[in-house]
Formats: sequence, C-alpha cells, structure tokens
Amino acid sequence: MKRIGILTSGGDAQGMNAAIRAVARSANSAGLEAYGINYGYKGLVEGNIELLDLDRLDGIIKRGGTILYSARFPEFAEKEYQIKGIDQLKKFGIDALVVIGGDGSYHGAERLTQHGFNSIGIPGTIDNDIPGTDFTVGFDSSVNVAVDSIDKLNDTATSHQRTFIVEVMGRGAGDIALWAGIATGADAIVIPEHKYDIQAIADKLNKNRENGKDHGLIVIAEGVMSAQNFKEELDQHGDFDSRAVTLAHVQRGGQPTAKDRVFATQLGDYAVRLLLEGKGGLALGVHNNKLIATEIIDTLENHKHQTDLSLLELNDRVRF
Amino acid sequence: MKRIGILTSGGDAQGMNAAIRAVARSANSAGLEAYGINYGYKGLVEGNIELLDLDRLDGIIKRGGTILYSARFPEFAEKEYQIKGIDQLKKFGIDALVVIGGDGSYHGAERLTQHGFNSIGIPGTIDNDIPGTDFTVGFDSSVNVAVDSIDKLNDTATSHQRTFIVEVMGRGAGDIALWAGIATGADAIVIPEHKYDIQAIADKLNKNRENGKDHGLIVIAEGVMSAQNFKEELDQHGDFDSRAVTLAHVQRGGQPTAKDRVFATQLGDYAVRLLLEGKGGLALGVHNNKLIATEIIDTLENHKHQTDLSLLELNDRVRF
Amino acid sequence: MKRIGILTSGGDAQGMNAAIRAVARSANSAGLEAYGINYGYKGLVEGNIELLDLDRLDGIIKRGGTILYSARFPEFAEKEYQIKGIDQLKKFGIDALVVIGGDGSYHGAERLTQHGFNSIGIPGTIDNDIPGTDFTVGFDSSVNVAVDSIDKLNDTATSHQRTFIVEVMGRGAGDIALWAGIATGADAIVIPEHKYDIQAIADKLNKNRENGKDHGLIVIAEGVMSAQNFKEELDQHGDFDSRAVTLAHVQRGGQPTAKDRVFATQLGDYAVRLLLEGKGGLALGVHNNKLIATEIIDTLENHKHQTDLSLLELNDRVRF
Amino acid sequence: MKRIGILTSGGDAQGMNAAIRAVARSANSAGLEAYGINYGYKGLVEGNIELLDLDRLDGIIKRGGTILYSARFPEFAEKEYQIKGIDQLKKFGIDALVVIGGDGSYHGAERLTQHGFNSIGIPGTIDNDIPGTDFTVGFDSSVNVAVDSIDKLNDTATSHQRTFIVEVMGRGAGDIALWAGIATGADAIVIPEHKYDIQAIADKLNKNRENGKDHGLIVIAEGVMSAQNFKEELDQHGDFDSRAVTLAHVQRGGQPTAKDRVFATQLGDYAVRLLLEGKGGLALGVHNNKLIATEIIDTLENHKHQTDLSLLELNDRVRF
Repeated sequence: MKRIGILTSGGDAQGMNAAIRAVARSANSAGLEAYGINYGYKGLVEGNIELLDLDRLDGIIKRGGTILYSARFPEFAEKEYQIKGIDQLKKFGIDALVVIGGDGSYHGAERLTQHGFNSIGIPGTIDNDIPGTDFTVGFDSSVNVAVDSIDKLNDTATSHQRTFIVEVMGRGAGDIALWAGIATGADAIVIPEHKYDIQAIADKLNKNRENGKDHGLIVIAEGVMSAQNFKEELDQHGDFDSRAVTLAHVQRGGQPTAKDRVFATQLGDYAVRLLLEGKGGLALGVHNNKLIATEIIDTLENHKHQTDLSLLELNDRVRF
Repeated sequence: MKRIGILTSGGDAQGMNAAIRAVARSANSAGLEAYGINYGYKGLVEGNIELLDLDRLDGIIKRGGTILYSARFPEFAEKEYQIKGIDQLKKFGIDALVVIGGDGSYHGAERLTQHGFNSIGIPGTIDNDIPGTDFTVGFDSSVNVAVDSIDKLNDTATSHQRTFIVEVMGRGAGDIALWAGIATGADAIVIPEHKYDIQAIADKLNKNRENGKDHGLIVIAEGVMSAQNFKEELDQHGDFDSRAVTLAHVQRGGQPTAKDRVFATQLGDYAVRLLLEGKGGLALGVHNNKLIATEIIDTLENHKHQTDLSLLELNDRVRF
Repeated sequence: MKRIGILTSGGDAQGMNAAIRAVARSANSAGLEAYGINYGYKGLVEGNIELLDLDRLDGIIKRGGTILYSARFPEFAEKEYQIKGIDQLKKFGIDALVVIGGDGSYHGAERLTQHGFNSIGIPGTIDNDIPGTDFTVGFDSSVNVAVDSIDKLNDTATSHQRTFIVEVMGRGAGDIALWAGIATGADAIVIPEHKYDIQAIADKLNKNRENGKDHGLIVIAEGVMSAQNFKEELDQHGDFDSRAVTLAHVQRGGQPTAKDRVFATQLGDYAVRLLLEGKGGLALGVHNNKLIATEIIDTLENHKHQTDLSLLELNDRVRF
Repeated sequence: MKRIGILTSGGDAQGMNAAIRAVARSANSAGLEAYGINYGYKGLVEGNIELLDLDRLDGIIKRGGTILYSARFPEFAEKEYQIKGIDQLKKFGIDALVVIGGDGSYHGAERLTQHGFNSIGIPGTIDNDIPGTDFTVGFDSSVNVAVDSIDKLNDTATSHQRTFIVEVMGRGAGDIALWAGIATGADAIVIPEHKYDIQAIADKLNKNRENGKDHGLIVIAEGVMSAQNFKEELDQHGDFDSRAVTLAHVQRGGQPTAKDRVFATQLGDYAVRLLLEGKGGLALGVHNNKLIATEIIDTLENHKHQTDLSLLELNDRVRF
C-alpha cells in the first residue's frame, strides 16, 4: 500500500479537520502518502484530488469546518458512480479510503469495499446519532457551543424573569438537548425519544415561581418541533414571559474541543492502522471508553443509536 | 450626601454589573454607602432596596445580566409614581440616584431631577443607539458575541459553499450589524440607515462565485427585516444555497469584554463624582475618546444617535 | 435521613460547583435539606455551616472555583478533630456527608465513615490522578484551558519560527500534558510516566526544520521539571529559538465544560442516592463510561491511577 | 500605480492578518494587485514575495499571528539593504509598501520613502506603546486575553483566599496592566510610569482582610519587574498566601477581537488610499476616535506614547 485517500461527507462537524490531519500524519508515519478528496463523493467521482502536504495540514487541528469541503451527491448510491470513483482513486495510485461523516456516508464506504476497494468510516457529526459508537466526532464541541449560548441566555432570563425555550440540533436524537440541558440547569428537556407533558412542564414552572425562582429554561431538540411552536403551546398553559430562540448552525462551527480533537486523532490513526492490515468495510467508534471497529453492514442494519435516557431522569432530580 | 442609589432599567446589557460595582465602590471610597434598587423603577416605587455590600459586589464585574434585575414599568411616566419613588429613596436615606439603561430610562432620571432628586443616567444597551455618546456599555461585548457566532457560521458556509444571512440585533441602529459585518468579512451589510439594493447584492454574490469564492455572508440588522424574509427575497434573485440564522438574545449575555468593563467602570465612577458635586439630570457618555456629561433633556430632544456610515463604504472596499 | 452536608477540599477544580448544586438539588428532590460546609474540613470542625438555598445555588453550575471555599487543614488526620467534625454535623442535624476533592480528601471521608458517619467522596481535581476513576471532575475543563492557551502560543510560534516549551499542571500524572499535547499537535510530550530522550526530541525538531516546518511545540508536565529547565537542557542540543511558558493556575479556573458539568451532576446525584441507601466510605467515579462506587480504603491502598500511555504512542505517529 | 506590497515586522499581534487582508482587498477594489512579503524586511531583501490571492486571504480576518511571518533583521538599518529591498520590490513591479508593526518597523518605512519608495506604517503591537496613535492593533485583543486569564485566577484566589500577582506584557508601557487590572478588579496595578509603594499595597491587602475580603489581585507590567520578584518583595510585608503568575506569550495570540478587526480594516484601507494619493513616510493611527496620519520622522522624534494615568486614579477609587 502506498497511498491513502480521505474525504468528508454529510454535514460538517468540529473535529473533522483533526481527523483528516490524523489520517494523513499516521499514513505519513507508516511511509504512505495521503491524498485529500475535495467535495466528498462528488469530488471523488470528478477526480478532485490533491496531495495533503505540510501546508494543507499545518494548523488545521484547531479549525472548524472541513478543509476538504462537503457536498451532496445522492447519485453515489448508483453502482456506476461507485465504479467511477474507484477508477479515479486508482488513477491517483490510491489504495484505500477513509470516509469521515454520518451514517449516510458509511453506505458509500461499504459499497466501495464490496467492489474491492477497502474503505473505513469515521463517525463525524454533531448529532451523536450514528450507530456503532457511544460518541461521534463533533458532539462534544457542539454541546459546548450550545452550553455557551444558553449560559448567555440565562443571564437575560435571570435579569428579566423570563423563560427561554431554546431549540438545539438533533433531528432524530436528543443527545445535544440532554447534555446541554443538564449542563445549563434546564427546567425541562424535550427530546424525540420521550413524550413530553406540556401540563407538567407548566406546573413545574409555576411551582418554581411560587418558590422564588422566576426565570426558566427549556431545551428542546429540533426533532420534536421548533422552539417557536413549543412556545405557542406553552403559552396556552400559563404566562411565563417566554421567548423562543433557535441556536441553529452556530452549533456546527468553531474550534473543536480538546476531547473532539483527541478522539478524532485516535480514530484517524486507527483507520490507517486497520487499512494497513488490509481491512475495510468497517465503522469506527468508541464503546465503553475503548476504540472499536464494527462491520458497516451489520452496524447500520442491526443497530440503532441509543440515547442515554438516564440523563432525562437525572435532570428530573437535579433541576430546581 | 450619605447614600447613593443605583438601578438598572430596560434591556440587560453586558457591563451593567461592572457599572453597578463602580458606582458602589466609588461611593464607598468617597465615604458614602451604596444601595441597589431591584427591578428598576418598579422596585423603586415598591421600595425593593438593599445595601450593596461586599458579598453582593464580589466577582460581579465579570458577569453578564444585571444583579439588580430589570422590569417593565411604563407607569413611571406618571408624576404620582415618580413622587412615590422619591419617597422610598428618602425612607432609605438615599440622596442621589444613578440609572443604568437606555434612553427610555433617562426620562425617569430627568423627572426625578426635576422633582429635586439628583439623578444621572449611564448608557447601558447593546444597540449603541443612545444619543449623547459615541458608544454604550454593552455594545462592544455584544458585537464580539455576534462575531464569535458568525465566525462559526463561516466554517460551515466555507465547507458547504453556502450563503448565510445572519440577523443581529439593532431595531433603529445598524451599529452591531456594521461592526460585526466588517469584522467577519461580510459580502453585504444591511442596516436601517441605508436603503439596500437586492439586485446589487445578488450580483455581488454571483460575481464572487465566478471568481472562485463560493460561500457568502450577509449581516442584517433586525430593524430592516428578519433574516428569513431577506432570504426569501434574495432567493428570487439567484440560487446561493442560502440559510437564515437569527442570533437573537444570545447577543445580550455572557461576560463583558475588557472595553465594556473599563468603560462601565469609568462611567460609574464619573456619575458618583458628578453627584457629589451636586449635579443631576445628566446623561453620561464618551465622545471623541473623552468622558462627557450632557443635559438629558437637551440630549434626548435635540440629538440623535449617528451611526458611522463610513463603515458601510469601508466594507464596500474591503469585501472580496 | 433529613439533611446532607457537602464540602470541598484540596485544590479547586472547575465543576466543583456543579457537583455541589447536584448534591443539593438531588437531596431536595428526595425531600432532604442540603447544608454547605465552608472552608473544607477546617470549616467542618469550626461549624462554618449554612443551608444551601435557592440564592446560594442559582447560577453556580457554570462558575469556576468553589462557592464553599477550600482550606488546608492537615490536623484533620487526627481522630480528635474528626470527632469534633461529627459533633458539628450532628449539631446541625446533618446525617451524611459528601466530600468533593482529591484523594487526600478521601481519607477524611473514610475516617468519618469508620466513626459511624456515612461519607462519600467525589473526585474533583484537574490532574486526573485519583485512583478509582477514569476521569476526575475538572480534568476536561483544565485540558481545554490548556489547549486554548497553547493554540494562542502556536500563532506566535508559526509567525516567528519559534519553539515553545509549555509547562502544564500534573505533578504525578501526565494526563493533562498528553491530552493537551495531542490536541495541539505537539512535537513532543514529556510526562513523569515515561523517560524522555532529549537527543531524540532535538533530532525531531531538526528534522522538522529540514522538512519545512520551522516552528515547534513541546508540552511538559510540571512533575518532570519546569519549562525553563527543560528549555535550558534543550538549548544545549540545538538552536530552536525556544521559549518557556508556564500556564500555571490559569488551568484551574474558568467556566467548566459541558462534560465536566454533566459528569459532576451525575456524581453529585449518585452520591445522594447511595447515602440514601445507607452507604458510606465510597469513592465515586467513572469506569468504561459507567458510574462506579468503590470502597475508599481498597481504592487508595490497592489501586493507582493509570495514565493512558497509548496516547504517547499515538502522538509519535501523528505529529509531523 | 499597479501593485502594493505588504509586510509585517516586529512581534506578532492579533489583527495583523485583518490588516493584511484589508490592504489587499482595498488595493484590489482600486484595481491594484497586492503582494505579500514573507518574513518582514529580511524577506524583502531576499525577494520572498508572493501574490496575495483569494486562497491566501480567505478566512484570515479571524486568525491570530501573521500569515506573512515576521523575522528579526537589524541589518535593514543600513542603506545597502534598503536599496536592495527597493530593487526587489521593483523587480516584482511593486510601487508602494505598507508595513505593519511597531515603531522599530516604522524606521524602515521612513527610509524607503526617503529613497523615493512610498511606504506607510500601521501600528501593530499588543503593548500600545507606539507614538502617533491612541491605540494599536492587537492591544484590545491582548487585554481581553489577559482579562480572561485573570478571571480564571480570580476563581482560585476566591476559593483559596489567595493573592495572585499577575505579570502582563508591557516593557515600557503599563497600558495592558491598567486595562486588565481595572477590568478584573485589581487591588493594585503596578506600571513603569508610576512608582509603586509596596507598604501601601500591603496595607491595602491587610485592610481588605480585616473588612472580610480575603483574596487579592495585583497586576504588574513586565517592565517594572517579574511577578516572582514582586511576590518576594510583597512577602516581606505580610502573609497574603501569594502566588506569582506570568501570562507570557499567550497574550499575543488567538483570534482578534471585533474592535481590533474593525480597526485593522480601517487602517489597512486608509493606507491604500493614502498611497494612491502619492503619499508616503506616514504613520497611521487613531486619535480622539478619528483616523489620523502623521509624518513618521516627526512622530518618532517628537512624540511619545502617553499612558492614560487617569486609569490608575480610577482604580484607586473603585477597588475594594
């Protein structure tokens, strides 16, 4: 093996650049060259491929986004494009591929492996909703961005006796909402995995006011409904001087946290070592604090991301 | 003079606590006691007043929000309530008052002074829209929060070739939009003080794409329209893969910047020194880098905040 | 059981306040009152004890330091003082105690339990060097502070072709150095657990310069030697335009990260639940991503903190 | 005029990249090309010069350090090297030069102008010690870094009843110390411009302890002495559980603040407009909130930076 290719796919997440760097550096250490494929699977098919040298990699470990860009390319589900992609890789003398992205991106890696081109997936997404891993690259950073923003909102809530309803990312998974909500002392956390009770939430806020706490915080995952819709529903159960705020794309960007950088570095290096052993079709992750590699097919077909619902019970006990 | 009172009014802004501390400490240094009035003019009328001692003040210089809370109280426009407020102040032996807030809050200070109770206003608001000062306490912090958020959005914009339309605060004044837009390299800044040309903006974004810059950023002040409405208008002039983001209340909170802390400290101390000289009915501020005190009536009636439109021309020259 | 006491002991760490809040709130939820003991074991013996009510707890989840203060009190190793402490607790009607601090603090909790007063320890220290847990409260925050500082130094190193030698905390454990070093792309990480080879490090830096990377970064744990001493040693092996920087106490303070807040909240709540079950003499922690409780005696006598040395090998592969 | 050159010289400062970008973009807007000279005057003489295109400039507005690097080159004081520099510039078709750096760097710009090559200086240094301007690019960012670090130290000081002596940058000027000290509530600020009284400082700390404030903070500029030396002196006047901390190079790096980005952008653009008018030998700056341009010779020979000592008196009034 002489050359390893890397691409990022799906939504960007903090730590993707740290993973790119780790793949490239670990490959270099093993005597291989690393090539970056720009614009995901689209760039793969188009042959938008460049050597990752010192200049491209220097200083990127701390940067948000992805220096390899990302792009939608649903056509890659078709075999024709997969074969074209492999042809491009071979043209550049590339022998194996690392794909950083969500579970949608894993399918491509799986197909390429089935066509004889070893490919490995690294879970990069802020939502933490990928099966086969307890955590994804970007999740920790994203939660910290959300927490930092909600801390600021709490300043105003306290000063003005308001209730903020804050919508965080997470279409199918409530992980960001759970972590951010506990870390900011939310009065309620509303997630797709658990049916909420609007009357109980209003009762709680009212009881807080009776007890002398006249500001409130509700963190809601976008997968349930918008903050604005939740506000309108809540307003029908009492007057909490409520305000709806949507944190939106801010959660995806900025410098990755230490944890995401270290984790991304571990996974990038692990991917290279597995490819050097001739392996492919694997999804990397962490389980019980240990790095793991599972078959992509099995992982996607037979496993689902499990949100840690014990955090919801925890919040019921520690909120005021 | 033995005791000085302090209250915060209107929307909270970073640096209000630094101003409260400065008033209290400067009063203490001059041998006076300082009393905090909770919940603005409402608390004044209700006599919600407490000594500001070491415990209340320790560590607040760095905190967002206001430890004295704020509350709406339009009734204070009536003389009856103003007299009640003065009665409460006298009951606590308070001889003079500092009001931290927006121009709405200045009216109260003016009335109290007219009734013989010397009161001075400190400009505390993120919008920078108060006449009689080049800058307000909170503006610098708020711009930095906006810039930090937009930096994060730029990571995603670059990775995904998108155009973000970011709505920042500023109902009547485009100052936050101007500063934040220049500091983040906006392709267009849209403010209430200047008519925008949607076709020119679309042309600019298209030209950028031709020249190889495939992501975009438009910063818009809330006073013009919502980010979402602007997006819909822009989308009719081209396909820029646009996304609308509203930074909302996040801009009001968090730790004040060094500049806001120093500025708030200067103003709080200045207010005490003027009150000690027997002055009242003044609005404090900074003009051409020097602290100034102007008559509230004259300031509100005869002056308007001047947004620095040279920044708009500057951005036209330095954007790509 | 009616009342639970809480104290913090040893060096302060980010997240201690989040743990205090969690203990108090979880106790409240179970129908108990929570009392804070100021100034650690010293305050315990002196009876410096207060109810933790809404006002004391509001907003502390995000604050660095400890609202209960900490103080040295080696006298608590003597039985006489331990009994005095229990007397004070009984005087306040307190039935059980949570101690947040390092392994030194655990001894006190162990003794109190042996005297019949159930006490549980929560690992709070930035160094991550407490046996019985994979991570301590404060470690993640501290690493992020170090990373943020080193990122800044890297700006100057790159601009001026310098080599920075950065000393981070960690007397016996290299964990902060390892994590911060990997997260910032260090050329070498020097820790107490592994003998360093100064010639090899100099060779690496020289080779980097030959390959076009003319700036350098070495992260060293304080337990090995000071940055200044290391610099002097390194300077004898080549001219790297080196600068020594000691991050010092800055690493202990500031707002805790999301992870430390959630982890501290989990542990505080877990402590209350165990005390309610009538248990004591336990050290809490996390192992393989699960909360655990181990006997303090066994933990301190038979276990040692294990630094993850695979991170050192990882860095050898991914550095330039 | 067709091409403008830009170089950075002296110590790096946050905002230098924003200035580089502004010079280049403003030049582009006027129909000129912009060329970056790497490694300051050294690179100028060696002809290390490159076109500043989209790729070089994209995203740099928010980055610390300088993408053009800096290097010591005392030889440039000699006419021989100045002429060589001009030859190189002419070889690249460059007609005018912008130099970003400290007053040392201004001398070079002045000499080049005297030899007929128009050059303009932009004040870029964290120390704020350049004559001809109220503020320098980097000062605001640097103060905010210092404030952020001292906030963290205050957490530990409060928790452990300690006194921190914090050394900030500033060899000849106490500006960083003054601003950072006021913004963090320092008990004493020690600067080169004002003789300190160690006994008075010790008395103040003792009086604080009597009044119930048992932690302390002293901010000292490096130009006076090291924090460690000051600590040793202070320790002879009382027991304040003091700790010395040197913030060091951390203050130079990291993302520039909004103010530094806007200011750097204004100056970069202003430099281009003046060069287009055929002017040279000028030092740019801000005075009383207005952009100014003064003759370099006159500025360096007849003016000195004036530290605002009213801030020292202010701190005497507002500290506890």
